[in-house]
Amino acid sequence: MSSSRPGKILVAQGGGPTAVINQSLVGVALEARRHAGIERVYGARHGVRGIVDEEFVDLTQESTHNLEQVALTPASALGSTRDKPDLAYCQRIFASLKAHGIGQFFYIGGNDSSDTVRIVAEEAARVGYPLRCMHIPKTIDNDLVGNDHTPGFPSAARFVAQAFAGANLDNAALPGVYVAVVMGRHAGFLTAASVLARKFPDDGPHLVYLPERDFSMERFLADVKAVHQRHGRCVIAVSEGIHDASGEAIASQLAGQVERDAHGNVQLSGTGALADLLCEQIKDRLGIKRVRGDTFGYVQRSFVGCVSDVDQREAREVGEKAVQWAMWGDRDGSVAIHRVGQYAVSYELQPLAAVAGKTRVMEDRFISDSGTDVTEAFVQYLRPLVGTGLPEAHRLRAPAVAKVLAGR
Amino acid sequence: MSSSRPGKILVAQGGGPTAVINQSLVGVALEARRHAGIERVYGARHGVRGIVDEEFVDLTQESTHNLEQVALTPASALGSTRDKPDLAYCQRIFASLKAHGIGQFFYIGGNDSSDTVRIVAEEAARVGYPLRCMHIPKTIDNDLVGNDHTPGFPSAARFVAQAFAGANLDNAALPGVYVAVVMGRHAGFLTAASVLARKFPDDGPHLVYLPERDFSMERFLADVKAVHQRHGRCVIAVSEGIHDASGEAIASQLAGQVERDAHGNVQLSGTGALADLLCEQIKDRLGIKRVRGDTFGYVQRSFVGCVSDVDQREAREVGEKAVQWAMWGDRDGSVAIHRVGQYAVSYELQPLAAVAGKTRVMEDRFISDSGTDVTEAFVQYLRPLVGTGLPEAHRLRAPAVAKVLAGR
Repeated sequence: MSSSRPGKILVAQGGGPTAVINQSLVGVALEARRHAGIERVYGARHGVRGIVDEEFVDLTQESTHNLEQVALTPASALGSTRDKPDLAYCQRIFASLKAHGIGQFFYIGGNDSSDTVRIVAEEAARVGYPLRCMHIPKTIDNDLVGNDHTPGFPSAARFVAQAFAGANLDNAALPGVYVAVVMGRHAGFLTAASVLARKFPDDGPHLVYLPERDFSMERFLADVKAVHQRHGRCVIAVSEGIHDASGEAIASQLAGQVERDAHGNVQLSGTGALADLLCEQIKDRLGIKRVRGDTFGYVQRSFVGCVSDVDQREAREVGEKAVQWAMWGDRDGSVAIHRVGQYAVSYELQPLAAVAGKTRVMEDRFISDSGTDVTEAFVQYLRPLVGTGLPEAHRLRAPAVAKVLAGR
Repeated sequence: MSSSRPGKILVAQGGGPTAVINQSLVGVALEARRHAGIERVYGARHGVRGIVDEEFVDLTQESTHNLEQVALTPASALGSTRDKPDLAYCQRIFASLKAHGIGQFFYIGGNDSSDTVRIVAEEAARVGYPLRCMHIPKTIDNDLVGNDHTPGFPSAARFVAQAFAGANLDNAALPGVYVAVVMGRHAGFLTAASVLARKFPDDGPHLVYLPERDFSMERFLADVKAVHQRHGRCVIAVSEGIHDASGEAIASQLAGQVERDAHGNVQLSGTGALADLLCEQIKDRLGIKRVRGDTFGYVQRSFVGCVSDVDQREAREVGEKAVQWAMWGDRDGSVAIHRVGQYAVSYELQPLAAVAGKTRVMEDRFISDSGTDVTEAFVQYLRPLVGTGLPEAHRLRAPAVAKVLAGR
């Protein structure tokens, strides 16, 4: 038991929002409210920024019904931040936590956020403050090491699959080339999720470009030309993070002025430039007339009404488990999802240093030899995650009518 | 009765796909199969193009179950076309219809397609061919005159509302400026549908730019600045068709080389250039750092799994009614939806010339005096169309915790 630690807990949300990040928040809040040793459950507004600014709300005074409704709402209900604390920032965090009698800190976020938790935990240990620090995984990029997958990814993957299923039908109705750019800086999981849109043998996406493989414009144009000749159309999924052999992002080659966030990451989303560049190349170099590009952008991570029920359940559980380990365990850590059979999961507590700041990319066994498709192993991996009731496309099977005029 | 006309009917789909265009197709097919006087129900592949190429399938030989499954699938199951027939094209259409013994022609499409039906009907009359010509309405733009609304619009409106609900939550979590460009060349209905995303008083979209009002960059930047100062963030809905006082589209001012379709329309969709331009202006001129732009693109009209049940039902009914009027009526026409009370509809048959090639835009009573919002009348108009079960956003209502360190 953690009776030696102060009796308040603090939960916060960092990084990009997901469709289920509030499930984890509510998992923490409702589980914590069960424990007599927990005096208050505070939430910090806008992540670590809200801690240093003392922007806290008292989740102990929330109704259970409203918490359940918030759990079903996408995007961080507490607000988020891109701040990455340095030592001085961490000292301000401690001052705030100490002043408010916080004994347990739960941070829901991706690999940047897990690194924040690691730094905070190290600083707490250094100054001898009894703080339990728990990282709760979240990221649509699915790029946390030590996890089978991460909450938020399955719902975003479902959106991408449904979007490509529609785009494929649209492209079949009005044939041409369609390019859609999907989020994912280093890891191609979300782009690869587009393959769940396929049902019939000639369904798109016909080509999938991942950041795990070097991108060559010449190879790309040859690929598109070949598919277009075969099917009379072509649907293409492209990760925003594609880069050339030197590692430079194709998207950042476009912009003279590159925007970087507090983590030093180049801004890739929120612009249609990459899709537009690829479309122009296809038009100019291949002479194909109908070429259309979409960039899924922010819709893919926060769309209201497209969620995996499996993802909802697991996101709730990682929040619950974090509190249980904090109360009954004896160490800090990061909650991780492991797969048990096809399909069930178990949860484990990883050391913070095992996940913090590291990036998982798609394993080679998930990428086809061509480098422009996934393997059946990836499809088997992904299918149970996106949940039940995925809509399915259907085609007319009516027989053709014999021509009368032709050949007369 | 139409006993003097040949016993086969032909149905085709033109223009941009929608989420429910196959409901109308199946409405025609299933209703026609009830009528003993109808020998065969043919479908033409890719609209009028399939007629001249004799690319027909025999829908009489489709199973009812598969038709019902296809009805639930977005995008034209028969394929579509952007071809706009001239006289020579129409003569080839007649040759094909005559050779196959077609006595009734049903064309599902927007105002360009209704004009095609009108031309075909006139040519049939001119050469004395007994052809019944019916136009069945479809367009996400909602721009057909004589209709309360058009099938396809409510489902696309639902997508836009759900997308903005998510984007608003995302923007609240990570504050900044968010711009999303929505389809709609001349009519702003679909862009205006973004307002259904609002629930709380400070919810976005905070600004809505419609093609019914002239766009001024200076006015736009002043609007954004004011909202950003008030809320610390700003969510903006912009129609792809916004234009300056001279009528030139802002999007086409960007491109040296402008792409036009067979109808002479400038290509606006399939590129992120307009959103990117607006974002750059906000960054450069207002000095706001976090500015993100999305272009909803093709996803908004063909996304699998976001559909209005009201739209599904009505799209089915306009197909059914077209066949009933063709069988038991005595004139060609275009099926129109009228509103009866709040909320029910009735269907009427308009003369083809009343709708063909005309464009409805948003009525003044639907647009606020500011020109950057809609009126309550528009919200009342739209709400019943998007159907039941629209997901709702919820917020934490937990009380703030008193600061301890601040002010020490």
